[in-house]
Amino acid sequence: MSKELTSRKEDYSKWYNDIVVKADLADHSAVRGCMVIKPYGYGIWEKMQQALDKMFKDTGHVNAYFPLFIPKSLFEAEEKNAEGFAKECAVVTHYRLKTDPNNKQKLIVDPEAKLEEELVVRPTSEAIIWNTYKGWIQSYRDLPILVNQWANVVRWEMRTRLFLRTAEFLWQEGHTAHATKEEAIEETKKMLEVYADFVENWMAVPVVKGVKTANERFAGADDTYCIEAMMQDGKALQAGTSHFLGQNFAKAFDVKYVTKDNKQEYVWATSWGVSTRLMGALIMSHSDDNGLVIPPKIAPTQVVIVPIYKGDAGLEKVSKVAHEIKNKLQAKNISVKYDDRDTQRPGFKFAEHELKGVPVRIAIGERDLENGTVELARRDELSKETVSIEGIEDRIETLLNDIQTNLFNKAKARTEALTTKVDSYEEFKKVLDEKTGFVSAHWDGTPETEEKIKEETKATIRCIPLNNPQEAGVCIYSGKPSTQRVLFARAY
Amino acid sequence: MSKELTSRKEDYSKWYNDIVVKADLADHSAVRGCMVIKPYGYGIWEKMQQALDKMFKDTGHVNAYFPLFIPKSLFEAEEKNAEGFAKECAVVTHYRLKTDPNNKQKLIVDPEAKLEEELVVRPTSEAIIWNTYKGWIQSYRDLPILVNQWANVVRWEMRTRLFLRTAEFLWQEGHTAHATKEEAIEETKKMLEVYADFVENWMAVPVVKGVKTANERFAGADDTYCIEAMMQDGKALQAGTSHFLGQNFAKAFDVKYVTKDNKQEYVWATSWGVSTRLMGALIMSHSDDNGLVIPPKIAPTQVVIVPIYKGDAGLEKVSKVAHEIKNKLQAKNISVKYDDRDTQRPGFKFAEHELKGVPVRIAIGERDLENGTVELARRDELSKETVSIEGIEDRIETLLNDIQTNLFNKAKARTEALTTKVDSYEEFKKVLDEKTGFVSAHWDGTPETEEKIKEETKATIRCIPLNNPQEAGVCIYSGKPSTQRVLFARAY
Repeated sequence: MSKELTSRKEDYSKWYNDIVVKADLADHSAVRGCMVIKPYGYGIWEKMQQALDKMFKDTGHVNAYFPLFIPKSLFEAEEKNAEGFAKECAVVTHYRLKTDPNNKQKLIVDPEAKLEEELVVRPTSEAIIWNTYKGWIQSYRDLPILVNQWANVVRWEMRTRLFLRTAEFLWQEGHTAHATKEEAIEETKKMLEVYADFVENWMAVPVVKGVKTANERFAGADDTYCIEAMMQDGKALQAGTSHFLGQNFAKAFDVKYVTKDNKQEYVWATSWGVSTRLMGALIMSHSDDNGLVIPPKIAPTQVVIVPIYKGDAGLEKVSKVAHEIKNKLQAKNISVKYDDRDTQRPGFKFAEHELKGVPVRIAIGERDLENGTVELARRDELSKETVSIEGIEDRIETLLNDIQTNLFNKAKARTEALTTKVDSYEEFKKVLDEKTGFVSAHWDGTPETEEKIKEETKATIRCIPLNNPQEAGVCIYSGKPSTQRVLFARAY
Repeated sequence: MSKELTSRKEDYSKWYNDIVVKADLADHSAVRGCMVIKPYGYGIWEKMQQALDKMFKDTGHVNAYFPLFIPKSLFEAEEKNAEGFAKECAVVTHYRLKTDPNNKQKLIVDPEAKLEEELVVRPTSEAIIWNTYKGWIQSYRDLPILVNQWANVVRWEMRTRLFLRTAEFLWQEGHTAHATKEEAIEETKKMLEVYADFVENWMAVPVVKGVKTANERFAGADDTYCIEAMMQDGKALQAGTSHFLGQNFAKAFDVKYVTKDNKQEYVWATSWGVSTRLMGALIMSHSDDNGLVIPPKIAPTQVVIVPIYKGDAGLEKVSKVAHEIKNKLQAKNISVKYDDRDTQRPGFKFAEHELKGVPVRIAIGERDLENGTVELARRDELSKETVSIEGIEDRIETLLNDIQTNLFNKAKARTEALTTKVDSYEEFKKVLDEKTGFVSAHWDGTPETEEKIKEETKATIRCIPLNNPQEAGVCIYSGKPSTQRVLFARAY
């Protein structure tokens, strides 16, 4: 089964697509650029959602739901935001279909059901939410508002890739309102930390926390904080963003509050989001030529048990032990699947669970039982060992933790190995082309230089890392003085 | 606070709307017919989702996600389904906005970005899902497929009411595929039972299980099963539907499978759904003139503790006991909120929590502490008693169960009182107008009679109850012979 996968060396992009499709994560749909998230892929997304949702609630946020559609006049109210998203908006113009008079089997858009005002399918919800907040906020007592929404959004992308860039995707978007600038900035940073915590400690993907340059900022934000991860092919992937929106949306929608000393002030805002794009980060961070590798903490199935037997009597003996082990693992809140399908042979099952990235596999054979042992295989290292059934639940609990840590450490070592300091433009281009990865270089701080470098090399400034060491240097491109290095990379 | 509510007697419809808005459940939005679900309302919906999702998973279903958009050519493939929904479809025709050349502050739809094929915003997902299943199903080994989706859908309604009828709403839609007709019918009935179980045992709303007449069937179904609930004003509300779709979608999308004996057969289908409309059923089943009443099993906050004190020293004393009680309740998995806001007085808090339907309120005063007692108030009966702090956690656990049962029993008694057998059309109309509720009457089984009765009285056949007693009679309208009574009502 795993033989059918394209190898990373052969064609990284095809390898990625093969995994997504063959491990049953997602598939292309009949709708241009839209994907179907299959049950196994959705199961991983649900694990991510649960962990994130708990983190949001633990930091005082509540969920709500705002309309899918945004009237054009509201959408255009915050100019920069509107300008940033206008080119990729799906627009609803009619509200009815009717039978085609020329062909009774077909439907046509009813020209008489044209909307007076077109509706934009939300590419992001700041406009509709701030228009709503206007009604919720009168006084400082109404603040802060700490709301999150789990939703679908649509951005009409011309070149799409499963999970990484699709016309419709699933995400969460936090939208908070604050009395002071300081509090809003604190919230922006707090949610960046929540994202970094989740991506590193649940997804086992190490990230660099930083701030975007003005060029790369979210349309409508005063500052965009981000976490950037390094994939196996040396390209960076933006895994989450947290925006300090200043008073831009409050001004666009006239949202003011009365302060304690009875003054009128505009409200301060943040927004922050992660999406099904994280699935792409997950796949490209850990998987190998045999298929997907999932960190135990977000694996829908953490342990699979495969019986090896001859005849019904053999199956019965093996199943008895398998169920005992399953019960012991479940008592420790470990998710286990006993794969006793009689339609497939063990070799097929091994390859399938490997392809699907199940962290631990237990194979139980009749002969093993005589010795009181089973075979334990770990997906991350593709290694096997024979272990005693006695105390296996503790051993597996430890093993799952080890796998989680090992995956993070491997990804961390790769990220470090793929981070290179350079001091000249020649070296910069050579590293980008040959070694790839993050390139740490001095930059003069101007959008013009950033733009030129992007045009010439396709590398963008991924971020100015938080707590970046300040050091005197010269810009690799312009030779002008610089006070710090920034992280460049080619990116997804 | 509760004084601001319109009473049911005064204006039932306004009372409903007042509760939705004033108890912070939902609000109208800037988008015609679309609502904002506010955090408190969404919190109840989340409780419903969690319970239902577990029930779906316990019956072998998995979640997935399918595209929001359906290309028009797919949408029209199953003719009856398309015909049924065509009149209420939001249609995306363009994928880009551009700056208005006559006004640089404004955006217009870019005429050059017209889609070759229009996209329907899903009113229901059979079409896109069955087009996808075609690629998933080859052999009997691929069946059954037991998939559910949590999603937003859009049906362009002309007259909208918060939760009950909105252009966009949230729901879940199960879509299953089976090898045999029997298995599909069994699934249809199983999911109806799941819905009835949830609505009765979690929402405390009694339902009648039944089958729709041909007129009232889901467009594209061979049979629609439903649960119908009776609201306080004597109108019925359809709370959930489960459809046996026959081979209609399999034929429309050419979905066949190879049987064990190597024949090609069309696949059998079901679909089933409940939506945020359930919030409407919840409100109109239990609430009173003081506000919302929530059954404990789906209440985001089951118990609220309100301190009554003078000065900081008083607060400290009361808070100590409040926290002790809170901890004891939380240890029993009871959700508790300690409302120690210093910006509001106890009376305001009492009214607010009453309006929001928190099942149990504990008031702790300084004087109570001397006696080792607190005041316990139950929302369903609006009654209060003084109880000992000793063992209060057990007492509240029992009380929450009592409230859950009491709400169900009250609603059950009301539904029974509002169900009337009639044997003439005169009596039928009189009951509908004066007593209201379900009217059980003989019907000749023809769509024509059903249509006439609907035109003349606005009453529809809500369902033919499951396990309906068979009895000879005559149709109240046509006088033709009939073999069973059916349930009529005016409905939401």
